[in-house]
Order: sequence, then structure tokens, then C-alpha cells
Amino acid sequence: MNDCELCRSDPAKILWGNEWFYAVDAGTPDYPAYIRLISRRHVPEMSDLSDAEREYLWQLLDAAERTMRRCVQPDKINYAQFGNMVPHLHWHLIGRWRGDAAFPDNAWLPKVREVPEETARARSAAVQTFLKALPAALDAVGAPRH
Amino acid sequence: MNDCELCRSDPAKILWGNEWFYAVDAGTPDYPAYIRLISRRHVPEMSDLSDAEREYLWQLLDAAERTMRRCVQPDKINYAQFGNMVPHLHWHLIGRWRGDAAFPDNAWLPKVREVPEETARARSAAVQTFLKALPAALDAVGAPRH
Repeated sequence: MNDCELCRSDPAKILWGNEWFYAVDAGTPDYPAYIRLISRRHVPEMSDLSDAEREYLWQLLDAAERTMRRCVQPDKINYAQFGNMVPHLHWHLIGRWRGDAAFPDNAWLPKVREVPEETARARSAAVQTFLKALPAALDAVGAPRH
Repeated sequence: MNDCELCRSDPAKILWGNEWFYAVDAGTPDYPAYIRLISRRHVPEMSDLSDAEREYLWQLLDAAERTMRRCVQPDKINYAQFGNMVPHLHWHLIGRWRGDAAFPDNAWLPKVREVPEETARARSAAVQTFLKALPAALDAVGAPRH
């Protein structure tokens, strides 16, 4: 759809992608370990995917979680699929730390604190490792079983 | 763990359950179509489950989404797995409507409006149908493939 920002995503911002799904770095200074995994098809719900697409998406999320855990070692990994603003299927995967901007609240709640600069710098370095490792990890999932 | 509220959940509040997962009605007046699907094992992350358990959990979420869609027809279904407060794996599945308490914000953001009483009553009736249909839909998924 022409008016959907996830249908016309800037290819330069795509970390990884194929004909079914693509991943973007959604990191911010407050939430550096943050990716979105987005359907190529403009559908709102998981049950709008074919069984093969949905199982493939689960496997991609699993591979992304494992890669984030290994590279970034956050205290918790948060998953969210809302789509209330943009009803084009997309998942948020966010690494969280005790003492991050809103912890234990979710990352959409107001920021209540700053992370010490040195801590933020160390996390950013780990996130770079994660972002570099991610495309190979997602490729390793294979393709949907049609 | 003795101090974990999801390890010692009140059996009377459980809508459906087996040795791997259980579901509870988490509905509120603002979000009547709201269930939690909770791991029996006290682990924090999806990647702490076995492959069979994780695939099974995804299939349970899929069955719950389809049943919610069929019975309740919300405008959007929201998934969230945070565990920042209670690091015991659990998923939130929430039916949302344009014009509900916080739409399009997520359900943890401040309430900004009331739903008209008649609309709320009609949704509650549909939610009762959903909650009654859910156990059979989750049973129909089968068991994890070990």
C-alpha cells in the first residue's frame, strides 16, 4: 500500500531481507539493542500469514533472540507485535537492562532515568557485534517450507 | 520458585492448562479480550525452552489468536512478552479496538478515554464466547513433538 510506511521502507535502512520478511535496526540511545522484523506483505495479523510464512517468522525471531542474547547479553528480551498505529505485521525485539531508561516498564512508557555514559558505550559496542552477526543468523534459518 | 507469582498461580483462575503451559483470563473493564499464556517452567526467555516446547507455545498462541479473532473480532490483536517485572516466561494476547482506553498506544500506556457502556457490554458478551471456546481450541493443538 502506497500510504504504508512499512510497505515503502527505505532499502538503505534494511539490515537483512528477502521476499518474505526484512529486518531493520530500530536502536535508539535509550534502547540500543532493538530490531524490527517486518512482513513484506501488507497484512495486519499473524493468522493472515500462510502456515509456512508464520513458522518461518517464528524461526527468524528465535534466531534473532539467540543472536542478541549471545552478543549483547541483556537482562531480558522483550517481544511485541502491536500494529495499532501501522497495521502492517511487524515485531519489535528489544534487549532490556535493569536500570535502562524505563525498566521494568515497557519501552513505550516514559523514560525515567539516564544510563551512565560508560555503560551505554559498552552496550553500543556489543550491539554493533549483534547487528553484524544478525544477517548470517537469519540466513541460516533457511527458507519457508512451502 | 516460591517467590514467583507465576509459579504459584491460583488453579481456580486457570482457564486451560497442562504440564507445559497454562492460560489465564487477564481481562479488565478496559481490555476485556485479554489472556496470558504462561510457561509452567520458571525460565525467562523463549530460547530457554526446548525446541518442542517453543514450537508448541507458538502454536498455542496461534490457536488463541484465531479463536479471539473469530469470537471477538477486535480491530487488532496485540502480542507482548516482556517479563521485566516477573522473569517467568509469559505472553500477553490482547484484543484491541480503535477507540478503546488507550488505542493506538499499547495497553500499558495511560488510559485516555472511556468506551461507551453499550459497546463495552457487547464486547463482554463476545469475550465470554471466546473464553468458553478457548480450552477446546488449545487442546486441539495437540502436544509438543518431543
